[in-house]
Amino acid sequence: MKIEKTNRISLVEQVVSQMESLIESGAWAVGTRLPPEMELMERFDVSRNTLREAVRALVHGGLLQTKQGSGTRVCSSSVLGAAIERRLHKSNLLETLEVRHALEREAARLAAVRRSEEDVQQLRLQMDACLKAIQANDHQAYVEADIQLHQVIAAASHNNLLIDLYEHMTDALHSSVRNLVELTSCTDVHQRIHGKLVDGIIAQNEDGAAEAVNEYMAHLKETLSKSLEEL
Amino acid sequence: MKIEKTNRISLVEQVVSQMESLIESGAWAVGTRLPPEMELMERFDVSRNTLREAVRALVHGGLLQTKQGSGTRVCSSSVLGAAIERRLHKSNLLETLEVRHALEREAARLAAVRRSEEDVQQLRLQMDACLKAIQANDHQAYVEADIQLHQVIAAASHNNLLIDLYEHMTDALHSSVRNLVELTSCTDVHQRIHGKLVDGIIAQNEDGAAEAVNEYMAHLKETLSKSLEEL
Repeated sequence: MKIEKTNRISLVEQVVSQMESLIESGAWAVGTRLPPEMELMERFDVSRNTLREAVRALVHGGLLQTKQGSGTRVCSSSVLGAAIERRLHKSNLLETLEVRHALEREAARLAAVRRSEEDVQQLRLQMDACLKAIQANDHQAYVEADIQLHQVIAAASHNNLLIDLYEHMTDALHSSVRNLVELTSCTDVHQRIHGKLVDGIIAQNEDGAAEAVNEYMAHLKETLSKSLEEL
Repeated sequence: MKIEKTNRISLVEQVVSQMESLIESGAWAVGTRLPPEMELMERFDVSRNTLREAVRALVHGGLLQTKQGSGTRVCSSSVLGAAIERRLHKSNLLETLEVRHALEREAARLAAVRRSEEDVQQLRLQMDACLKAIQANDHQAYVEADIQLHQVIAAASHNNLLIDLYEHMTDALHSSVRNLVELTSCTDVHQRIHGKLVDGIIAQNEDGAAEAVNEYMAHLKETLSKSLEEL
């Protein structure tokens, strides 16, 4: 009886960790609806109870979401991402921006030191995308290009932990960043600072890149405090 | 039947979130052994099955640990802390130090701007403790005082998100930091840089404080790469 119980718990843990791997690898991307119970029971070779307990553990961990009528879907790409998202609910926008500032400045410094030729190409590509969006006066496209540019910069740091933390933090921030960018009518200021940041990284100018991040964040914080005053 | 099932799941969630609050508030500190099942069933007014499922969800989330024979204990103070700890297992020491560098530099900058008179007192107290440990040649006491000094600096940033991330990151790092400090025979270099850092914060010299962190981290990274060469 005791042995059975232990086995059952470790079975649940095994299914949980297999599902986590599927989610973290992107095989089950965010938004994916889980296959039918019967299929999963066969795939993992477990009973219905074991499967359900594993699913509930992942619902609790914030990776899955169960909605009446629409089944169970993947709602976060990693345990860390879900934990950060939950933590961000308890912090205000200024706190979050300050932490983002810290991560972004370090990413810019490391990118200036470590960027490969491929990173340089990606940086140029995303800068072009930002420019085209401005010329077309396409706000939505600009926001998307802006987010991707920052992801390319983080990737050029070649520090996976930093990339993960930064991405999870910005995932949760996207809606607020979107609001902030909408508040700044002056995308040209934005674009000028981005130019300085990207040039700094390409020229392997660590201090120059970090300074551009400082300028960029000062601009964001100013916009934020103005918008709070107006409320 | 359907309603009952929904109720049961939400009951589990309620117990989970009450237990989480007890853990995150410190009422159930890390290391605490959970009260007997009967007591918890009464306290939360739930059935044995509901209680067990809640406990398993928290075991999965990394807040509780169940060991045969010694019951269930609290093993992490927050969901975020547990998630960070798990993520750090997958990253190397240099990656982790770089992220710590980013958080520590921002904490020093914010502390220089925001430190209160009470923070100043705490900083002086911890600097004294470091000095006394050096004079007594008490290595263990020095490591403890060093950790507390860094916590006081983080606290002086008055950014709760930064404090949380920094503490969870250093919790997981403590053993490696301990190793690193042991590797650096030169606690005097360490202490000189700490002096510069604390003086910078007290004098509200943002750049000076950040520069001291850079120096400190360069020293740590150098020690790390030397120790890796020796392996």
